[in-house]
Amino acid sequence: MKLEKLVGERFKERPSDCVIDSHAFFIRGGYMKGVANGIYSSYLPLRRITRKIEQIIREEMDAIDGQEVQFPVVLPASLWQESGRYESVGAELMRLSDRNGAPMVLGMTHEEAAVQLVREYGQSYNKYPFMIYQIQTKFRDEARPRGGMIRVREFTMKDAYSFHTSQEDLEAYYARCYEAYERIFARAGIPETVAVASDSGMMGGNLSHEFMLLTPVGEDSIAICPECGFRANMEAAQSIVENARDDISSPLELVYTPNVHTIEEVCDFLRLPPEKSCKAVVYEKEIPEGGIVALFIRGDLDVNETKLTNFLGCGVHPASLTPESGLHPGYMGPVGLPEGVTVLLDQSLKGANNLCCGGNREEYHYTGLDMNREFPEAEYRDFAKIKEGGVCPQCGKPRIRISRGIEVGNIFQLGTKYTKSMGMQYLDQNGQAQYPIMGCYGIGVGRLAASVCEAHHDEYGPIWPLSIAPWQVHLCCMRADNAETHAKADELYDALEKAGVEVLYDDRAVSAGVMFSDADLLGIPYRVIVSPRNLKNGVCELSARDKSFSEQIPLEEAPARIAGLIREKLLGFSEHKA
Amino acid sequence: MKLEKLVGERFKERPSDCVIDSHAFFIRGGYMKGVANGIYSSYLPLRRITRKIEQIIREEMDAIDGQEVQFPVVLPASLWQESGRYESVGAELMRLSDRNGAPMVLGMTHEEAAVQLVREYGQSYNKYPFMIYQIQTKFRDEARPRGGMIRVREFTMKDAYSFHTSQEDLEAYYARCYEAYERIFARAGIPETVAVASDSGMMGGNLSHEFMLLTPVGEDSIAICPECGFRANMEAAQSIVENARDDISSPLELVYTPNVHTIEEVCDFLRLPPEKSCKAVVYEKEIPEGGIVALFIRGDLDVNETKLTNFLGCGVHPASLTPESGLHPGYMGPVGLPEGVTVLLDQSLKGANNLCCGGNREEYHYTGLDMNREFPEAEYRDFAKIKEGGVCPQCGKPRIRISRGIEVGNIFQLGTKYTKSMGMQYLDQNGQAQYPIMGCYGIGVGRLAASVCEAHHDEYGPIWPLSIAPWQVHLCCMRADNAETHAKADELYDALEKAGVEVLYDDRAVSAGVMFSDADLLGIPYRVIVSPRNLKNGVCELSARDKSFSEQIPLEEAPARIAGLIREKLLGFSEHKA
Repeated sequence: MKLEKLVGERFKERPSDCVIDSHAFFIRGGYMKGVANGIYSSYLPLRRITRKIEQIIREEMDAIDGQEVQFPVVLPASLWQESGRYESVGAELMRLSDRNGAPMVLGMTHEEAAVQLVREYGQSYNKYPFMIYQIQTKFRDEARPRGGMIRVREFTMKDAYSFHTSQEDLEAYYARCYEAYERIFARAGIPETVAVASDSGMMGGNLSHEFMLLTPVGEDSIAICPECGFRANMEAAQSIVENARDDISSPLELVYTPNVHTIEEVCDFLRLPPEKSCKAVVYEKEIPEGGIVALFIRGDLDVNETKLTNFLGCGVHPASLTPESGLHPGYMGPVGLPEGVTVLLDQSLKGANNLCCGGNREEYHYTGLDMNREFPEAEYRDFAKIKEGGVCPQCGKPRIRISRGIEVGNIFQLGTKYTKSMGMQYLDQNGQAQYPIMGCYGIGVGRLAASVCEAHHDEYGPIWPLSIAPWQVHLCCMRADNAETHAKADELYDALEKAGVEVLYDDRAVSAGVMFSDADLLGIPYRVIVSPRNLKNGVCELSARDKSFSEQIPLEEAPARIAGLIREKLLGFSEHKA
Repeated sequence: MKLEKLVGERFKERPSDCVIDSHAFFIRGGYMKGVANGIYSSYLPLRRITRKIEQIIREEMDAIDGQEVQFPVVLPASLWQESGRYESVGAELMRLSDRNGAPMVLGMTHEEAAVQLVREYGQSYNKYPFMIYQIQTKFRDEARPRGGMIRVREFTMKDAYSFHTSQEDLEAYYARCYEAYERIFARAGIPETVAVASDSGMMGGNLSHEFMLLTPVGEDSIAICPECGFRANMEAAQSIVENARDDISSPLELVYTPNVHTIEEVCDFLRLPPEKSCKAVVYEKEIPEGGIVALFIRGDLDVNETKLTNFLGCGVHPASLTPESGLHPGYMGPVGLPEGVTVLLDQSLKGANNLCCGGNREEYHYTGLDMNREFPEAEYRDFAKIKEGGVCPQCGKPRIRISRGIEVGNIFQLGTKYTKSMGMQYLDQNGQAQYPIMGCYGIGVGRLAASVCEAHHDEYGPIWPLSIAPWQVHLCCMRADNAETHAKADELYDALEKAGVEVLYDDRAVSAGVMFSDADLLGIPYRVIVSPRNLKNGVCELSARDKSFSEQIPLEEAPARIAGLIREKLLGFSEHKA
């Protein structure tokens, strides 16, 4: 098509609200336009990209025996009440009422809808296993949408649900899906995507992986062990801390510590390293009846709130303590806390002695805290964030590195959470009623497009991989006011289209600067320039958006040469195909 | 794929809530499943059908220079407030609030979103004309969803919006879109679809057409003139009635008419034909301040409420009159009505005399009503329903026939309703600010699938046109327990798939009855049977779902012959292609 006719605006200035490059390019290049906070409309270039991504996903899902279905966007609340998520999921679940006052929700994932669809079909063991998937609009009322297409409220997602009669069968299918995901990301142009163990969060279930594109602008933190290849989302990574217990335990002693509040100040004042302190982090539970949680952890470590909320089964936020609580912010310790506070101990404190901690009294701290002596019955759990340089939970070596990444897909082993709560059963070979075991598998289409842009761009715009590029060739007619040049460029345009090449044709009477900056923003992998100067030599100029080559080719050979080049390059992508 | 693995249930009994055949087949054949009133999930067969329909639509929209975009499903209410539709559209517009209490709506059409997307782009005349479209989920909170996929609350729709700088340009584009629609319906297998003039309703604008599949189960009534080809939705068709005025006008006279209420009873009592009566139809306006409307119309005619609500600019419902109103149901007439009632006169009364009408007094009627004499200043408008045998508004002959139809698409000339209300302007060649003129064009994808099924089915199931069939060939292995037969059928399955044919393969060990009734429900156009008996002669049986042919073909020739047949048949459909 002609660039002149392409609906959408392209401009030079980076909008001030664009923190990451893909967001800026998508706005500046006429890929999308904001409609409300975290809600966008897409113009043709992005729609062409997402359609190609959708087709890659569809092929790979079909290749692992997936069956494409379509669930509703608007679901009756009753389905989510069956699973219990109507109550357990917070404000990100959009709740609404229909004209008769019936409560509805906007689907943010479709486990409930999947179970509803196959509950009757799957009543006999011989129907299993099966997988259904859809590519459909989802809405999540995110508190803080950000990063353009990276974290939006409305998005297109491929969500898949598999059903099995045994954990082994689920695991075998999970492995097939894992490989299908690797193929999808490779075909979309980001084979460097890595799978990391993840936290299952509100989805339920026990084993799950996220596929991460490692990039400094990612919003997830990933713990990676270069030694053994261990990779996990920081939310899910076990923190291993070994305490060297001192041979001699000092006695517990209350010390006057005026004007000393933070762990750093306390340790400075008492001349102790942070590892010898017991830090209090105080939360309030996000449940109607509330409740204060005091979590104690070694002073050099941070709390992993995902581990905490998973343990509690509810959300938390930092507590704002009133004088009536009987608690003393800045001076809280595990010894002599008032009743009614939920006390949790991180395993970093296990067996530790000679620690300092709050005195539960204004301006006082204890020294000589010995966990074994003071709390002989205590239970310890892992609530800590894994640290740069921390111990790898897999190989045990202190080699952990923390990287940032964008989650471009995830796979979950769900177990029977949904089939049990929603009463889906099948009769096994012995006629016994059983609950099917589920897996679920998601990929956000728009986020994947933005992630590819993050991985492949320069300062001027995206560099789209050919497999998902909005068009394959960007044809520029320089000096379109020159009739002969224009005619030759028109001919080449027609010939390329006849050869099956997807061409965006810029024959506007604009300067080379405008033409090239638009081409950079559109990021089409191959550029062909027809100009009066080239025509003198009977050639046109073919170059790659990534600057890997630039050559002059005889005009009459151009259509066949370019079509051949594209075929060959696309073959490279489809080598990853199932 | 193998039928055995196809998720979804097929069964024999017609569900009691299925009034029309497509609904029954879609439920009985495992095409879809109800999730809530008017909300369905689709299984693979229907998803394959809708994907093929979407692709046909996409190709034809691209062929008339459409650019595919994507608008959000969830829109900020502010956009609909700009256009005024947030207030003017009733309960079918789903209103909701996000986590911050911001009012949102679920898009039921996207005129506002379209204007928002191109408001800045379209600031200069040289960007025009352009058309953008999407294929996306919509939600309309219908009061009475019915007919399965025919009238649902959530549906997938192709909606297109064109922008122009002159009415002539809009009309030229409108004609192109009209033709694209004819191609779409022909390619989808219902070339018999007809365009009819329609009412623009809440969309605004003045000229519009609906594309109707004529079928007795349709929910729309269409006036058709076999004489001149005039076709219009009954809602939009002008009613032409010529009154022969009597030469002598009798005087107005109040007559005692005890126990006489309906028009029939009055005319019987007074020995007058219904054409000599003036009927009152009383409505209440659906606006906060209410208000009674008394519409007078010739006794043999019915009120077209669409014409009435268009004239009033608000909805109406039949009035329930209280004694305090001063009105006398059954005895209302235009002479001596109390103040405060909005009186409307249908043009069927214009110039009429010697009419009977209510006396505005219990048990009394007037005779000798002369409209010219009693109401010399009155205005008359067309509020009547066109009738079977009525006068054609185009050729003037009394030949109108009323048919039923399903609306499978519509096209509207919107004018400047949205661009004006939303402040979208461009500078014309003289530097003057102008409002662009819009058109909009919709097709419901699921409804189109159901309509094709209504047009093409027998008592056993759908007969899908090859162009949108879920699969092209239904391969049955009879006696799958026979190893040799099974092996030959497997071979044929592989060979057909290799030849690029879409095959659904039934190799279940079930009876021929079960096999064929499932095949009938799935409606795949070609059926191939491999059986021990056929194999003895080295043949398989190829037949058409529509019973147009059945032949035996040598097994080894089958893949090539069948693939060839399908190619040829598909060519027939693509002859309609743009």
